[in-house]
Amino acid sequence: MNENERQVKQLTPKSEDFSKWYLELVQKAELADYTPMKGMMVIRPYGYAVWENIQRALDTRIKAAGHVNAYFPLFIPEAFLKKEAEHVEGFSPEVAWVTIGGQEELEERLAVRPTSEAIIGHMYARWIKSWRDLPVLINQWANIVRWEKVTRPFLRTTEFLWQEGHTCHETAEEGETETLKVLAMYREFCETELAIPVLSGRKSLREKFAGAQMTYAIEALMSDGKALQMGTSHNLGQHFSKAFDIKFEDRKQTLQYVWQTSWGMTTRTVGALIMVHGDDSGLRFPPRVAPVQAVLIPISVGSWKETVLPVARTAADGLRAAGVRVSLDDREEFTPGWKFSEYEMRGVPLRVEIGPRDVKAGQAVLVRRDTMAKETVPLASLTSRVPELLESIQAGLFSQAQAFLASNIRDAADYGRFKDILENERGFVRAPWCGDEVCEDKIKEETMATIRVIPLDETEGRAAGPCVLCGRAGKAVVYFARAY
Amino acid sequence: MNENERQVKQLTPKSEDFSKWYLELVQKAELADYTPMKGMMVIRPYGYAVWENIQRALDTRIKAAGHVNAYFPLFIPEAFLKKEAEHVEGFSPEVAWVTIGGQEELEERLAVRPTSEAIIGHMYARWIKSWRDLPVLINQWANIVRWEKVTRPFLRTTEFLWQEGHTCHETAEEGETETLKVLAMYREFCETELAIPVLSGRKSLREKFAGAQMTYAIEALMSDGKALQMGTSHNLGQHFSKAFDIKFEDRKQTLQYVWQTSWGMTTRTVGALIMVHGDDSGLRFPPRVAPVQAVLIPISVGSWKETVLPVARTAADGLRAAGVRVSLDDREEFTPGWKFSEYEMRGVPLRVEIGPRDVKAGQAVLVRRDTMAKETVPLASLTSRVPELLESIQAGLFSQAQAFLASNIRDAADYGRFKDILENERGFVRAPWCGDEVCEDKIKEETMATIRVIPLDETEGRAAGPCVLCGRAGKAVVYFARAY
Repeated sequence: MNENERQVKQLTPKSEDFSKWYLELVQKAELADYTPMKGMMVIRPYGYAVWENIQRALDTRIKAAGHVNAYFPLFIPEAFLKKEAEHVEGFSPEVAWVTIGGQEELEERLAVRPTSEAIIGHMYARWIKSWRDLPVLINQWANIVRWEKVTRPFLRTTEFLWQEGHTCHETAEEGETETLKVLAMYREFCETELAIPVLSGRKSLREKFAGAQMTYAIEALMSDGKALQMGTSHNLGQHFSKAFDIKFEDRKQTLQYVWQTSWGMTTRTVGALIMVHGDDSGLRFPPRVAPVQAVLIPISVGSWKETVLPVARTAADGLRAAGVRVSLDDREEFTPGWKFSEYEMRGVPLRVEIGPRDVKAGQAVLVRRDTMAKETVPLASLTSRVPELLESIQAGLFSQAQAFLASNIRDAADYGRFKDILENERGFVRAPWCGDEVCEDKIKEETMATIRVIPLDETEGRAAGPCVLCGRAGKAVVYFARAY
Repeated sequence: MNENERQVKQLTPKSEDFSKWYLELVQKAELADYTPMKGMMVIRPYGYAVWENIQRALDTRIKAAGHVNAYFPLFIPEAFLKKEAEHVEGFSPEVAWVTIGGQEELEERLAVRPTSEAIIGHMYARWIKSWRDLPVLINQWANIVRWEKVTRPFLRTTEFLWQEGHTCHETAEEGETETLKVLAMYREFCETELAIPVLSGRKSLREKFAGAQMTYAIEALMSDGKALQMGTSHNLGQHFSKAFDIKFEDRKQTLQYVWQTSWGMTTRTVGALIMVHGDDSGLRFPPRVAPVQAVLIPISVGSWKETVLPVARTAADGLRAAGVRVSLDDREEFTPGWKFSEYEMRGVPLRVEIGPRDVKAGQAVLVRRDTMAKETVPLASLTSRVPELLESIQAGLFSQAQAFLASNIRDAADYGRFKDILENERGFVRAPWCGDEVCEDKIKEETMATIRVIPLDETEGRAAGPCVLCGRAGKAVVYFARAY
């Protein structure tokens, strides 16, 4: 058994135990590690580099849409959290409380932010006076703490990183427009950068954000057939502006409450990348967010240091200059075979092999991670061929994920079929729903499936066939799934 | 009185009351705002944009020096903080404690990180096994909480943002080399990006980081004559590796404790920019970190919307394409005069005025913020002249700050002169010191001055003239100052 095989054998196959495969991969690929504190993880450099690429790409879009970044305090006085009734009810079970500071008991305990509507609402009431101050389009990159009972690295952790946008508008219409604009931005971001197709739509009232008027979301399908919420965009209406007294003088000199939105994406997107694209050999990162896009492995035989290494270095420099995130692994203590499987496991999109025979022939061997297809390329063409292949890999991963999603959306006209799909096939079930929360609750209780999204073109009241559970007139065809 | 004058008059002159000027400017320029929680501030978009520029420029340098970013938990178990005796003694008075999570009292309270040596040390002990794992060169961008008694926006706040580097090395020499390399990186960063000259050197043992073997620092001089510590680089020796059991098998198969460093720069650098470069009219941002480098103000007279505005828009587009961070203020509700003083106050390095006569003459008027010098430039030359002027402003601000620093370093051979300088002239006092902490303490008690740095070329033991306080043989000539 060579080292190559040993490495691959260490990873539980995805098909055998998806959950074990995921947790092993997170650790073996050094994306994250556990800490002694339950539910809190360290994001290791390789995982953090993915998050940095996500941040950069998302931040660019957020700014291009007119938003600016700011930073609000980590702590929120308890009285602030209590101002919006639904909000405190939804979040107080999950709050971590600071009760001692500077060796003294605090008069009022401070919540470590579980989300920032409350502190930001307080500040907006200070800053906004007139319609001239609107819209306010602020985003924040921050850490968030929610005391979760069941945790899993990246997907649900006590502390996580995110961006949270918080906007204020003159009219209800502008608020709704912003909410949907961000939803579309999130969708485009997931598809373009993460190569992850999503379903988008609104949430049922049961699933909405605590304090929102309406929550919209994008949902992706993991390769075990469970859904994952990738991002949410909330139309807050005037819920928080009334609670925090955020008023402005409108164009007719009348005092009005502002209309607000908030929206966020988190480090769980890194988990989605693992679960959507990974395979039995490990990760498969889309090139746009991969920490390393191409790894150059010199084949270490004979006098490779004199013959192969200089050529490999020149090739790496050329690729770097062409804008490729390239890494050259010239370590002597590992064999080429070990390196092959190591970088497969780490999901590097493209491997470039150069051995003594390649040097003589003036060529390199390229192996793409998505299909494992090999090709031989003249060294002189590397800087044009590698970027082409990276684009092709990005597109290929997206197509694969699209095909998987499309083949895992199933219609259920009756409850028998509905349960059968969830039990034996998983994925999304598209079914008519009467709009009654009682049916929604019963379905969740009996099948663990929830309404993931109500598509935007499904207006309430349209005939949609009988409700999959109760048989009364359906109000919309909605997407159900079991979810993370 | 026109609006222009009104705006300027609202700002307390710097010479009249430096502290009031600083606090007013922070608020009027919308860099930061107070929150209901004592000592915690909001960094508003204009202030945060400065921090983003600082982050980008510093992060680039940190990575170029071989470091990678990661993210460690916000919370640290109390037992971890206690493992290094000096560390807990130094930090425990300032800790905010989380005692309740998920509605339950925690078994062990958690510190909101006042710095991350303890949690990182614990993780390093898990990750490092062999000399092959070294060096570990990790940096983190994070928020930090220290329960400060006396606070001031940016300079000293209960929560602040920073980067903290944490490295591990095989030998003591490599640790010392890293410590000094980072110190030099910080110095170059301050001079090149912030246009702030600094003194660099080591701290006395009294002033070192709690848990460090030796602390090095860079110190800048604010324009009120007080010093500000801009960044610190600590050689931790084996203090934390022994406390956290971070061992590796060396090249001779012997188990050794690693040698560590840690180093940080914070949002207080934004405060330094205000205090070093600001004048009676407001801020003066160095172009490299200015959120807006050039503001274009169309002179709104007559049919300016038809004649001037299109020309101004074209000019703005051209500058943007040339890589200038440019903003066009076409608001009708403010006069050009009001805008002039507004952007002076906000420290925009360059103003570009275009009026009807300028349009006819095919020119624009450029006014630099550092000297208020005006020049008229053909519109066709804007994209070459503006970047030139921005470089000249960057250099000009640095020269001014250098000259100020040079003229505010004074030698004191005796204690009378020493006290006289601190009382009447301020700035840095260069004086021989015997090396005894008793003298250091007494000087601080009587003059409020501390040893800011011991220059690197001042080796202990060299003859330096008699100690400025006790008259015994001096061991080094050191820099004293009152400091923030």
